[in-house]
Amino acid sequence: MALYVLRSDKEVAERLARSLLEVKEKIQSCSICFNLTDENPCSICRNQDRADGTICVVETPSDQLALEECGSFKGRYHVLHGVLSPLDGIGPENLRIGELLERIDAEGIKEVILATNPTTEGEATASFLFKLLSNKKADLKVTRIALGVPMGGDLKYMDRMTIERALKSRTPISP
Amino acid sequence: MALYVLRSDKEVAERLARSLLEVKEKIQSCSICFNLTDENPCSICRNQDRADGTICVVETPSDQLALEECGSFKGRYHVLHGVLSPLDGIGPENLRIGELLERIDAEGIKEVILATNPTTEGEATASFLFKLLSNKKADLKVTRIALGVPMGGDLKYMDRMTIERALKSRTPISP
Repeated sequence: MALYVLRSDKEVAERLARSLLEVKEKIQSCSICFNLTDENPCSICRNQDRADGTICVVETPSDQLALEECGSFKGRYHVLHGVLSPLDGIGPENLRIGELLERIDAEGIKEVILATNPTTEGEATASFLFKLLSNKKADLKVTRIALGVPMGGDLKYMDRMTIERALKSRTPISP
Repeated sequence: MALYVLRSDKEVAERLARSLLEVKEKIQSCSICFNLTDENPCSICRNQDRADGTICVVETPSDQLALEECGSFKGRYHVLHGVLSPLDGIGPENLRIGELLERIDAEGIKEVILATNPTTEGEATASFLFKLLSNKKADLKVTRIALGVPMGGDLKYMDRMTIERALKSRTPISP
C-alpha cells in the first residue's frame, strides 16, 4: 500500500488521507445493536421490514457482515465486540452483554440465536450467555447455529469434534 | 516412495512387495456393510455390542474410518462406494443402494443417518436416498448429519451456503 501511494499522484494521497479522517469522524457504534454505522441507529435497527422478536448475537461487526451477506436472516443483530477470554482479562463486563439483556426486555425478544464462532472462547461465551438468558426469562428460546461439516467439506478431512457435533446435531430431512 | 525403496536394502523391497500382494489377497469387501475388511463379515458387523436399528450411510471406507475414529457413533455402517454423478455415468445401480434397502428390511432398521459429504454429488445422493427411503417405509426416520460451521471455524471466512445452513439448522441449546 505504501508503494502504491508513492507511485500515485499527490492527489491520490490527499484523497486517501481525507477519507481516513472522515471514516474516524463519521463511523460510530449503533446505540442499539453496537454494529458500526454512519447513522445512529444503524440501517438494520431502523428497518421496519425486518422481523422483530429475534436477535442474532455475533462477536464482531465482520461476523455480522458475513451473516447479512448470506441474506437468509431477517431479524435483528447484537454485536458483542469480543468474546469471553479470562486469560486476556476479558470478562462479561467488557462485552455488550448488559445491553443485550436490556434489549431482550425492551424489545420483547422471543428467540436469541447465539452465533459466536465455534472456537474455545466462542463456545464458552455461547454457553455463558445460554445460562444467563435461560435463568433470566423462562419462555425465551435460546438457539445455537449448527456446528458441522461445511459445504464442500469432506468427512475424512474433518476433526473429531466437528464429526461428533455433526452426528449429534443431525436433523430429520424435510422434503 | 520410489527413492526410499532405491535407498533401502533389498529386503525392504521384498517385504513391501509381499505386503502389497497380501493386501490384495486378504482384504475384501464385507458382505453386509461393504466396508473393507480382512474377515467377512467385518468386525463392526460382527460386534454384538453395537446398537442395532441405526445405519449410518457413508460414501467411502475412508469416511467410515473418520466417523469411527470420532468414537461417538455406536450403530452400524453402510458404505455406498461412491456418489451419484450422472456426468461420470454413475447412477443408483452403480452404488450399494439395493443392498441398503435389503438391510433396512432384514435388520429392522429404525433410523438411517445420511452421512454423505456436503458436496454437490453428496447432497444429491442424500436427497435421492431420502426420497427412496421415505417412499419405502413410512415409519423410518431419515436424518442428515449437521451441515454448519466446523469447530475452530470463523463465520467471516465461511461461504454463504454454509452460513445459511448453519442458521437454518440452528438447535436449541441443551444445558
